[in-house]
Amino acid sequence: MTEYELFAVELAREAARVSLPYFRGACEQVDKGGADGFDPVTEADREAEAAIRRLIADRYPEHGVIGEEYGEDRPDAEHVWILDPIDGTRAFIAGLPLWTNLIALRTADRLAIGLIGQPYLDEIFLGGPSGARLLRGRAETPIAVRSCAHLNEALIATTDPDLFTGAELGAWTQVRAAARLARLGCDAYAYAMLAAGRIDLVAESALKIWDWSALVPVIEAAGGQVTNWRGEGPDAGGQILAVGDARLRDQALVALRRAAN
Amino acid sequence: MTEYELFAVELAREAARVSLPYFRGACEQVDKGGADGFDPVTEADREAEAAIRRLIADRYPEHGVIGEEYGEDRPDAEHVWILDPIDGTRAFIAGLPLWTNLIALRTADRLAIGLIGQPYLDEIFLGGPSGARLLRGRAETPIAVRSCAHLNEALIATTDPDLFTGAELGAWTQVRAAARLARLGCDAYAYAMLAAGRIDLVAESALKIWDWSALVPVIEAAGGQVTNWRGEGPDAGGQILAVGDARLRDQALVALRRAAN
Repeated sequence: MTEYELFAVELAREAARVSLPYFRGACEQVDKGGADGFDPVTEADREAEAAIRRLIADRYPEHGVIGEEYGEDRPDAEHVWILDPIDGTRAFIAGLPLWTNLIALRTADRLAIGLIGQPYLDEIFLGGPSGARLLRGRAETPIAVRSCAHLNEALIATTDPDLFTGAELGAWTQVRAAARLARLGCDAYAYAMLAAGRIDLVAESALKIWDWSALVPVIEAAGGQVTNWRGEGPDAGGQILAVGDARLRDQALVALRRAAN
Repeated sequence: MTEYELFAVELAREAARVSLPYFRGACEQVDKGGADGFDPVTEADREAEAAIRRLIADRYPEHGVIGEEYGEDRPDAEHVWILDPIDGTRAFIAGLPLWTNLIALRTADRLAIGLIGQPYLDEIFLGGPSGARLLRGRAETPIAVRSCAHLNEALIATTDPDLFTGAELGAWTQVRAAARLARLGCDAYAYAMLAAGRIDLVAESALKIWDWSALVPVIEAAGGQVTNWRGEGPDAGGQILAVGDARLRDQALVALRRAAN
């Protein structure tokens, strides 16, 4: 692994150390009650991002950081870390181990390294210059997308059709009708399963830069592709299409393009 | 634990031993190819149920068994084991660790013991005469539902709204609109999280007897309730409503009753 890949894993282990104790209420005894109550996921989110930012500032003070909780520092730097310490807050709240720590490194405007970590499962999906792999405990397993020539053989996923606009829902419904099987409720974990060759296509909308940046290097290193709903690079529009097999992209875009921003 | 509770755990460990190697393709090298291909989830389902049935026949030859894969043996016996060796086959196929082994014991027409097991997470949720608990490794933790007085504070779940009929979807949409947050895609694992006090309400339809039997003792022992969409005991109609707090039941039934079988 490269220096920055190793550092991304170090950041993920720190995010896991901080966020996991909040999962399923281990930290809820510190609930102060009161009108606002205590929101463990927000607390975990903030603490994890703060911890990651401290490590970056110590090691690479010249690097930039963009994070969901604490905004932008030096977003025009050569190297910028893009963080969503807890993606899938609904899953987190509901006790479901499909929330993830998302960490990306953008170098000279290119997404160079991506990491999807799930601490309860002790899983880190890492993509970068050294390839795509799953780290679990001390085991490292290479991962790769699978081939899937036609949408009617594809297992597809989205987190929640209710998050789509009307036009997007129409497009998704058309893709879903053509696909073999659809799976809901996975958040970023769906992209990890795409990179691992278990899911063939994921389509979502309204994703922020910290939601999608980490996915791109994982999926590209595993042999897949991530685009917007026009087939171009993902952007601020937040419509994301990920495919394991490039042949699915054009089939899905027939429908998705009509709802593209 | 009672004798039968201990035996249920023994059955779950056997189901885990048989089914886990098929998850994420560890067993796919035995794929014979051909037109029909190899279906790891069906294979895992059948092998796990066969293994459980062998253990029951050895230990309690007079007991009955009802299973998804191999049908009914002595369904009128005093003690009948009701099995769904792999609930959540879509999750299984998609690599998502939310599929479960479901095991119930019905004694004199009453669901006495229920078990929801997730082998990849090493989790067994057990409900019976000794109470409700989560077994993980050697750790045993009591579990309980949480209180939730009003639907507008509730975290609710269903596996996939597309599985509802039109009338059911209308009823679900009304419940969802009133709830704080909805979560999709969990299959039987949602009921485990309800018993563990993380989710407040689950509504589903078209469930078979092996889909819902194991849930009832887990949820009841944890302090919750399981009914059909008329507020009566769950039945062959397959419409299931589970609540952690009984006050939610009546609020949800206002909508669900209109779509009740």
